[in-house]
Amino acid sequence: MDMQTSADVQNRRITKGFMLTRVGVTGIKKPVRVVRSDTSNTLFCNIDVFVDLPSTQKGSHLSRNLEAINEEVEKSLHNGLPGIEVFAAGLCRSLREKHEYSTYAEVCVTADYFMERPGPSDKLNLESFKIMAKAVSHNDDILKKMIGVEVIGMTACPCAMETVREQYSTNVTMDDCLPIISHNQRNIASVLLEVPENLDVEANDLIEIVEASFSSPTYEVLKRSDEAAVVLQAHREPKFVEDVVRTILSKVLERYPDLPNETLVTARSESEESIHKHNAFAERVATLGDLRTRA
Amino acid sequence: MDMQTSADVQNRRITKGFMLTRVGVTGIKKPVRVVRSDTSNTLFCNIDVFVDLPSTQKGSHLSRNLEAINEEVEKSLHNGLPGIEVFAAGLCRSLREKHEYSTYAEVCVTADYFMERPGPSDKLNLESFKIMAKAVSHNDDILKKMIGVEVIGMTACPCAMETVREQYSTNVTMDDCLPIISHNQRNIASVLLEVPENLDVEANDLIEIVEASFSSPTYEVLKRSDEAAVVLQAHREPKFVEDVVRTILSKVLERYPDLPNETLVTARSESEESIHKHNAFAERVATLGDLRTRA
Amino acid sequence: MDMQTSADVQNRRITKGFMLTRVGVTGIKKPVRVVRSDTSNTLFCNIDVFVDLPSTQKGSHLSRNLEAINEEVEKSLHNGLPGIEVFAAGLCRSLREKHEYSTYAEVCVTADYFMERPGPSDKLNLESFKIMAKAVSHNDDILKKMIGVEVIGMTACPCAMETVREQYSTNVTMDDCLPIISHNQRNIASVLLEVPENLDVEANDLIEIVEASFSSPTYEVLKRSDEAAVVLQAHREPKFVEDVVRTILSKVLERYPDLPNETLVTARSESEESIHKHNAFAERVATLGDLRTRA
Amino acid sequence: MDMQTSADVQNRRITKGFMLTRVGVTGIKKPVRVVRSDTSNTLFCNIDVFVDLPSTQKGSHLSRNLEAINEEVEKSLHNGLPGIEVFAAGLCRSLREKHEYSTYAEVCVTADYFMERPGPSDKLNLESFKIMAKAVSHNDDILKKMIGVEVIGMTACPCAMETVREQYSTNVTMDDCLPIISHNQRNIASVLLEVPENLDVEANDLIEIVEASFSSPTYEVLKRSDEAAVVLQAHREPKFVEDVVRTILSKVLERYPDLPNETLVTARSESEESIHKHNAFAERVATLGDLRTRA
Repeated sequence: MDMQTSADVQNRRITKGFMLTRVGVTGIKKPVRVVRSDTSNTLFCNIDVFVDLPSTQKGSHLSRNLEAINEEVEKSLHNGLPGIEVFAAGLCRSLREKHEYSTYAEVCVTADYFMERPGPSDKLNLESFKIMAKAVSHNDDILKKMIGVEVIGMTACPCAMETVREQYSTNVTMDDCLPIISHNQRNIASVLLEVPENLDVEANDLIEIVEASFSSPTYEVLKRSDEAAVVLQAHREPKFVEDVVRTILSKVLERYPDLPNETLVTARSESEESIHKHNAFAERVATLGDLRTRA
Repeated sequence: MDMQTSADVQNRRITKGFMLTRVGVTGIKKPVRVVRSDTSNTLFCNIDVFVDLPSTQKGSHLSRNLEAINEEVEKSLHNGLPGIEVFAAGLCRSLREKHEYSTYAEVCVTADYFMERPGPSDKLNLESFKIMAKAVSHNDDILKKMIGVEVIGMTACPCAMETVREQYSTNVTMDDCLPIISHNQRNIASVLLEVPENLDVEANDLIEIVEASFSSPTYEVLKRSDEAAVVLQAHREPKFVEDVVRTILSKVLERYPDLPNETLVTARSESEESIHKHNAFAERVATLGDLRTRA
Repeated sequence: MDMQTSADVQNRRITKGFMLTRVGVTGIKKPVRVVRSDTSNTLFCNIDVFVDLPSTQKGSHLSRNLEAINEEVEKSLHNGLPGIEVFAAGLCRSLREKHEYSTYAEVCVTADYFMERPGPSDKLNLESFKIMAKAVSHNDDILKKMIGVEVIGMTACPCAMETVREQYSTNVTMDDCLPIISHNQRNIASVLLEVPENLDVEANDLIEIVEASFSSPTYEVLKRSDEAAVVLQAHREPKFVEDVVRTILSKVLERYPDLPNETLVTARSESEESIHKHNAFAERVATLGDLRTRA
Repeated sequence: MDMQTSADVQNRRITKGFMLTRVGVTGIKKPVRVVRSDTSNTLFCNIDVFVDLPSTQKGSHLSRNLEAINEEVEKSLHNGLPGIEVFAAGLCRSLREKHEYSTYAEVCVTADYFMERPGPSDKLNLESFKIMAKAVSHNDDILKKMIGVEVIGMTACPCAMETVREQYSTNVTMDDCLPIISHNQRNIASVLLEVPENLDVEANDLIEIVEASFSSPTYEVLKRSDEAAVVLQAHREPKFVEDVVRTILSKVLERYPDLPNETLVTARSESEESIHKHNAFAERVATLGDLRTRA
């Protein structure tokens, strides 16, 4: 790999060192080709990789990380891979081999992602999302892979709606077609699932779960009547950031009855509040077991 | 300044060079003390400075820029300055002197800024803003200074409101206390005025102008009834990004009847649309003269 | 396009409005397929589009922008386009048609980009770049398109090298194989060319120009001996940010003898100085005519 | 606090909810006044705060967070506080009180920070840093506070230096005043210490520790001879990211012999490699106890 005739400064033995938790490279950009059913997508990935380093070794051989990345990228470009989490897992395994001294390896991958989604009048439209994958290998433990998505949606506030109703609505029966005004805003929500390597979770399913957890999904193209339908939908289902996270969690439980109890779930919702200069935020980190028993 | 005994590589004469429009340093962080009436604020500024460079000179003496910045920072810390645009103007003048070969100098300064603003129930609250200043000196032209502010507010969409009314509202007379639902969102608007050095524009006034141009200002702390008042206010004054920019322009005309026609105005509004994943944007760049004659 | 039966609030006539310079949407993410010779790449683009707005019209029909984008994206996905600047130009033309009131349209597109480049030992490697395209249409003027690239490279400082030599080097004849130490760092340089629509500039050529203008290009994978070769190369060609910009300009002149004098060139170099917390910066904005006559 | 006459939607009991790990607000900007010995600094802070939420409660009362922040900001502006970690701790305690249902609270604060540092020729200069503080309160555990700093410095690569020496240096005795060339670059390093609330760690000390762990510190203003001295210093102490982290850890052990073994330390170094487009990264997360026993 590295020329042994040349100075291998990294490989020097040192006596008063400390072990290091994570040593690696960040911000590598590479294309990864993902093939699902009959569609092939080349994703533009941002990749970070790390291994640990014993206290007695001066440095980690960082160029091996790039060699490992290039080999896995090549594989994906030639053969296609079922997902970026599979890319991450393969790369993680390769890092453990190339850094023979390592007891830990970690790979993080993020990419922009497009998926056709039906709009309010059912016309398909190409919407953009972020997908994230991570793989972690520790000693002889089974390799864990994580797959996640980040989706932009819309929330309308249930509290402001209720207060407006109380304070400003007269006794006259309201036009029952129309909900009361509230503040609404862009919300960025994500869900990440960690599973053993042999189990499978599809990014497309996770996108559907998160998209269905907002007050309303959002769309790039909306004709005027579509716009009205989205506004109405959002006000008929007002939601706090807390509600978005809890809906995601419910839908994850429903969608994955067969995933093991140890599966780790992280669900998050951040709302770019229209009435404030700051954001509202909610998060749950839990195992499926905890969620199933409502612990 | 620079030791003439040491190699002045920058100062070397070259024969096949090109003149350069802007050479300088970016991303310098320094405190600048601003004293207005009886209040003193030390702002954390991000500073970029540039001068031009003749085709015959190899390099610009970049360390002189830092010396100039340090001298002006010192002055502001000891004596206080009336505004960051005055800091920018002084620094711009100093750059022209220190780079004796320059025919152009430019200084850009941005800073976070706090100002007490009355909330919906008139209680004062510390809100955060961005202020921007720029100074440009060209040949023997009068030095121009620019002062601008960026403010976060809220817009409610007039179009969605109208479409909802048309499509979903029945013939029953609506409760006339309450506007119809629409989508609303965080909006980031800014205004920048360029004036000759001897004229004065206050950042605080510009903040008031922009804040009053949204559907509603936004606030860090809102009790429940305040929240309802803000929502109501926003829906009573629905605005496109275009409306925000035009309102800013109107208010600038009203507020500054004495500024000369050549004064350059840039007004901008960007809306983080709640129903889309992208933003809406509007901008006008014009002289006060153009605005006054509606050209 | 928009349903005329529904409330066209944007289309309302107003009397005391101001014309707006640019109204549009920002941050749209879409795939664009680029086919050059026999290679096809689907780029993940970030798109901003704008048109102007007459003073008498309340709003711009923003959904038309998304329709125009979708149509051009469809075309590129089905037929492929020779470059993102051709995508930008087609979109710009479409915007002028869809906004029948417009006298101006502007389209900005950026994308990550991969290109195989030979490393120091001539092995090909996939390196990452940014490409930018812009198209501007004004009244009946010929549509202008701009194509640019941003490249990461390395610079070593000529001044520090000279001062170290003067101050620390003894009279003993230096080992003439090895240059003197200096500070070196990551440099981000870009070049952008504006040409009439019928002329052609290739992003790949611009990448080669900028890459050859640093002290040394940079590479993702470097074996140990390659690393030494890059370090040596960088110190044999020490360069200020000014030198990087001037080299780009020279190479542009050489490479494009047939582009007209009116062609606008913007070249820029920003150095993340290793000895400072701030950056060094140089820029030239000029026509090819100015550069040819060294004006 | 909140008007009980008005709709307290957040307070509603729900039956099929999930507990949430963290609910709060992010991106609040506020000034905090820090008084140490006889110097007073008003820092511009970015603040995130969170509490947990029981499964039976619909929402967290987010406006209480802003009330808590405002009260602590007021205190700091009137009386001054010894550090932003003390601000964070006070705020964390207040959150636990205001959210009477909470079993967890977390406060994160970051701020730009200026400190006078001696340059290579001992002249004092105002350099910029980032400081970070965090406070965490869990059940009846002692409140933990964390204080950290982020510092920009310079590293020169020991490996490239060695390889250049081997491959290009002739047998002639080298001028022993001068080290061999290598690549060097901007490095961003940080250290964070977590201590029980009653113990004290000063940001200024942490800045000195990190600054002394690079190949060389960096400076805003450098005269030509200073620049040469910095370059020489960096090449006399070439360091990998691993070396930077290990040096920080050693210095932390030396500086804080009295901090308890449970004290958590996170040290990190990220190098914006000049010869690559990506970064190199190293990190250790450990207790002082682990570090003391070299575990």
